[in-house]
Formats: sequence, C-alpha cells, structure tokens
Amino acid sequence: MKAKIALINGDGIGPEIVREAKKVLETIEKKYGHEFIFTDIDMGGCSIDKYGVPLTDEAIEIAKRSDAVLLGAVGGNVGNSRWYDIAPNLRPEAGLLKIRKELGLFANLRPALLYKELADACPLKTEISKAGFDMVIVRELTGGLYFGDRYTKEIDGVRTAVDTLVYNENEIRRVAKVAFDIASKRRKKVISVDKANVLDSSRLWRNVVEEVAKEYKDITLEHMLVDNAAMQLVMNPAQFDVVLTENMFGDILSDEASMITGSIGMLSSASLNESKLGLYEPSHGSAPDIAGKNIANPIATILSAAMLLRYSLGLDKEADNIEKAVGKALKDGFRTADIYTEGMTKLTTTEMGDKIVEYI
Amino acid sequence: MKAKIALINGDGIGPEIVREAKKVLETIEKKYGHEFIFTDIDMGGCSIDKYGVPLTDEAIEIAKRSDAVLLGAVGGNVGNSRWYDIAPNLRPEAGLLKIRKELGLFANLRPALLYKELADACPLKTEISKAGFDMVIVRELTGGLYFGDRYTKEIDGVRTAVDTLVYNENEIRRVAKVAFDIASKRRKKVISVDKANVLDSSRLWRNVVEEVAKEYKDITLEHMLVDNAAMQLVMNPAQFDVVLTENMFGDILSDEASMITGSIGMLSSASLNESKLGLYEPSHGSAPDIAGKNIANPIATILSAAMLLRYSLGLDKEADNIEKAVGKALKDGFRTADIYTEGMTKLTTTEMGDKIVEYI
Ligand SMILES: CC(C)[C@H](C(=O)O)[C@@H](O)C(=O)O
Ligand SMILES: CC(C)[C@H](C(=O)O)[C@@H](O)C(=O)O
Repeated sequence: MKAKIALINGDGIGPEIVREAKKVLETIEKKYGHEFIFTDIDMGGCSIDKYGVPLTDEAIEIAKRSDAVLLGAVGGNVGNSRWYDIAPNLRPEAGLLKIRKELGLFANLRPALLYKELADACPLKTEISKAGFDMVIVRELTGGLYFGDRYTKEIDGVRTAVDTLVYNENEIRRVAKVAFDIASKRRKKVISVDKANVLDSSRLWRNVVEEVAKEYKDITLEHMLVDNAAMQLVMNPAQFDVVLTENMFGDILSDEASMITGSIGMLSSASLNESKLGLYEPSHGSAPDIAGKNIANPIATILSAAMLLRYSLGLDKEADNIEKAVGKALKDGFRTADIYTEGMTKLTTTEMGDKIVEYI
Repeated sequence: MKAKIALINGDGIGPEIVREAKKVLETIEKKYGHEFIFTDIDMGGCSIDKYGVPLTDEAIEIAKRSDAVLLGAVGGNVGNSRWYDIAPNLRPEAGLLKIRKELGLFANLRPALLYKELADACPLKTEISKAGFDMVIVRELTGGLYFGDRYTKEIDGVRTAVDTLVYNENEIRRVAKVAFDIASKRRKKVISVDKANVLDSSRLWRNVVEEVAKEYKDITLEHMLVDNAAMQLVMNPAQFDVVLTENMFGDILSDEASMITGSIGMLSSASLNESKLGLYEPSHGSAPDIAGKNIANPIATILSAAMLLRYSLGLDKEADNIEKAVGKALKDGFRTADIYTEGMTKLTTTEMGDKIVEYI
C-alpha cells in the first residue's frame, strides 16, 4: 500500500529515536512492498527557534493530509531553556496540545506492561510484580481541564485564576467506545476512573460509560475513584486490563503506570481520532540531558511505529513483525543504557535500531 | 489545661477506632492532669440515617465551639448502600466536604513515612525502600475543583457537565506558608506540585509559592509537574520532604504516597484552619467490610489524636508520649491483622488500644 507518514523529530533525543523508527519503517516498506512517503514537520522548541511558534499552520496542514504522524518528543529543561521564557501558549508543549486538538485526537492509548526480560527494573517488589501486568490506559485527550476556558485576573485586587473542566456526553461516549472495543480484544474488563463523589463531570462520565457498557454485554465494567486508582496501581497492577479515564486523571495515572513497569523507554502510545489518522509517540519525554549522545532507547518509538502500522494503516502482520523483532532483541540480551543490566550486551541508539532491522 | 474535643465516630470501623483513640486521650488527660471535655457529633451515613443529612447545622456549631475535632471515617460501600441512592450533596462524603468548608480547614497535612518495623509491607522493592522515606503532604483543602461552581445541563440536547478549578493568591499563600513552616522544622525542602504547563491556576500557584519562598531563605523550593510527581513517588520517595499541592492533585498524590508506605493503617492526618482549630483523622477509609469485628487498626486514629494534642492544644510532650508508646508497641512485636507478619503477636483493635495505653 501507499501511505503518507509525517515525521516530527521534536527536541532533545527526538531526532535520534525518530531516525531509528524511520529506519524500521523503511525496512518494513521494502520487505512487504509498500510505499511510504515521509514528510518532516517541525514542532516544539525547534519550531519556536525557526518560526517563533511551536507549531505552524502549515505544519498542521501537512499532518492533516497524512495517514499518520510519528512523533519523537518535544520540550526542553523548563528551568534553563529559552523556550520557557515566553508565554505559555508559545511554549513547546503548546504545539502538542494544538496538534491533538486540530487533528481531533480524542483517544490516547497508553499500554503499560511488564516485560518479562526487564522485570528486574520494576520498582515494585517481586511479590507484586511476579503476577505480571499488562494494561492499556485509554485517556480522553481533547477535553476536560486541558481545553476548557481559563483566565487569570484581579478580583478586587486579588489575583485569581480559573480553569474549567467540561465534558459533554458525546465526548465521553466516543472515548468510552474506544475503551470497550479494545477490551473486547483483550481480557474483557474496563475500569473507568473518575471522582464521582465530588465532580459533576465525573458523575456524567459514570452515567455515560454505563450507557455504553450496555452495548458490550461481554465486557465487565467497574468504576474506581481516582485516588483509589493511584493506590491500586502500586498495590495490585495485575487487576487492570483497560483503564478508561478523563484527560487530567489520565495524564497522572498513565505516567504512574509507566513508571511502575520500570522501563518507560519501552512504552509506546497512540492518539487517535474518528477517522484512521493517528499520532504515535513514545510515552517518555525528550530527555534533553542525554540528547545527541546516541544512547537513548529507540524501542518506545519503534513500537509506536508498529502501533501506527496497526491502527492507522491496518497493517497487522507488519506490526507483529516489528513487535516480534523487538521481543527477540530483548530475549537475545541486547539493551540500551537505560535498561542495561549485568551480563547483557549494551547497544547505542543506532545499534539497537540496526539490531531490530536485522531481526525484521 | 481544659479543652473541648468533639468526637465523630462516623461509619464502618469509625466507632471502634475512635473508641481506642479516646481511651488514649483519657489516659493522657489523667497522667498530665488536663481536663478534656468530649462531645459526640454525628457525621456521614449515621447522620443520614438519623437526620436525613450527612451533617446537621447543630453538629457544625458544636465543632466550631470545640478546640479540636477527632474523626474516625465516613462512608459506606458505594455499590450497595442506601447512602448512595440519594443526591450527591446528601451523601456521607458531603458531610466531610461541608465540615472542611465550614471550619475553614484549608491545610491538610498527611505524613507518609516508612516504619522501619513494617518495611516488609512496603510495595516497593528493597533497592528503593531501603533508603527509607518520610514526607508530609500539605494539600490545599478548601479550594480548587472541590469547591468551584459546578452544574450539569443540556446544551442543544447534549448533556454537559462543568466543574470549575479556582484559586486566588490568598488561598495559595496561606497554604504555602503552612508548608514552608513545616519544612523549617524538618529537612528544609518544599516540592510544590502543579500542572503549570497547562493550567492557569497552576501558573498562579507557582508564582505565589515563589513569592512565599522569598520569606524562607533557608528552605529549598522545587517545582514538579503532577504527572512527574506521580512517577517520582514510586521511583524515589526518599527525595520528598514537604510536598505542597492543590486539592485534587493532593487527593491523588497523598493516597499514592500512603499506599507506598504499605501501612495505611498507621497514617494520621490533620486539617487546620487559620486559628488553632483542627480536624484530625486517619488517612484510611471506613472499611465497611471489617466493621464491627474488632480487628481494625486503631493506630492511625491514635496518632491523629497525638497530632491533635500537638497542633490544636500545643501539648507537644503529651503528643511525643503517644508517638513513643506506638513506637514501642511496634518494636515489641504487637500488630493488628492488617500489619501482621509471622512471629509477631496479633492483637484486636481493643487490645492494641490497651497496649498503647499501658505504654503511656
Ligand atoms: C506535555 C504535557 C502538556 C502533556 C500532557 O499533560 O498531556 C504530557 O504530560 C503528556 O502526557 O503527553
Ligand atoms: C471522600 C472524599 C470526598 C475525600 C476527598 O476526596 O477529599 C477523601 O478521598 C479524602 O482524601 O479525604
């Protein structure tokens, strides 16, 4: 097949990890006789440097005309970067929020699983981690506090700031459906996380999720309060299959879940809209401290490329091929620095990309 | 001294744990020649059953006229309790939110520490837990999403729910001062948690916290994004001394931090206002499943009573005495069921209370 893939290097280690993922995609292209047309897009700090804004309208147009977008990471060190001396809506992260909104990427899927080979890196004790875990967090990505009205003003001389958490039933329903659809192909359990004992938006969330659940008779639905979910992730991660939640809770819980795997350098993510167009990116950040050293782990980005093939292009076999190659590289003891343990073979970013290409 | 202490049994295990804490307070009263006048207040499900509301105005008046309030826990099983078939503002938790607001309890202090004797219960692996940790989370308790305007309505036939996150500089300043004051008596480090890359309220939060920091030259201030904080708690809890954050983030992070200690039955909390009046309660919930069995752990409530003596009545020596007695009970191998491990002596709720009384 012929497909247009937009590539966003972004900042920090972004260019290095996207380079390896592109190499992998090109290998798949050749092996299976596809034609992938790659176009580069600037986003984040590098776009600020060139254009004064973290994402230009032209860049969005290219993304919209693509079949899928693969992103490295954006942003720098908040403390010591010129990209943070400017208005919030001009900072690197604003580019990310803008592309999510403009492409309507309402469903963010973040798998968090314990890799058997990397179980030693799990911060939880063996008693808990030995059960293993494998969950997907489905986070609503274009609503809630992230996109509600906000302002700061003086009221009687007192600075006051307001953010708004808004959800309507349609926004909740469409992301709930995504969660139930994914659960259908997995262990058939959805845990919906909210704060229904306090928030109106959570009570509506809970009602709509229950309506959607009626259409999925074979899926078990449970509700969990967000404070309890933050505890359960640590105590008993094995209980989670699909976790469905709103934007801000999803931000917090998906990061907590990633960390619990102990190998955030391995975790991919997909952000999907109503059509097949999706944005794919590693769950980790731009890691400015190790940028340019060729030591970053490209696997999360390579697995994001596999998700891209699966969800946006419908190329399941090709996605499987990449995932298996990654599995084999791990099994054969190849590791980048972040996941290295004694007795394994340490590889650079480039070498890890090459190894996975070789196994494809 | 003479002091008026209001007691709220609440629901579930509430009456059992408050009973033991009262016993401890009475022991202190005798030993040190104080006069404590105890008054019972109904709150939560038991108040709904009696009065149809989770907290009556009379109850609030009693609380306001007291020097301190000691609370067990409120609420039942959301799934199968008559207390949840009613409007949200009439449910048990509404009583808790109401008393916080009416007494102006804006600063919630939640210590989360690893007890050496209970380190085995910590869900983190030894590599991480061996460093130990001992933090206090200072959570703003009367603002933010919890108390902003909210409504649900149909907009063009589409159900829409809105919650509002509001903070003004005064609300931020006063809770920040509490955090810095506590840090002064501890390891002199405040980590302020926000989501300043997205929220206006977080950007105001950050500015005001920095203003307050200028008055505390010997305290180190760091800012951390909430998603990162959720990760750092798991990876490296030892880095935290005082954590300062807004209401909803504090709800999530303080529960995560409690769970990381592995012994939530040991964790106390205090909610303070501008005067000395405070509400003291265990960090755990009402545990309806084990209610009435005399197996609940009363230590969190007993330690909350110690905090009450320290913060509301200024009785440091007496508070120390309780804390030491608890420490000795642990050291001597006495455990309730929730923290029991082989080789220890298992005690009931009453027996644990008696043991601590004996050691005082
Ligand atoms: C960079 C930031 C705005 C973003 C978010 O909060 O959504 C990030 O934390 C993420 O999870 O992708
Ligand atoms: C019961 C609930 C409203 C409450 C809260 O969210 O504040 C509880 O979780 C707590 O932390 O005290």
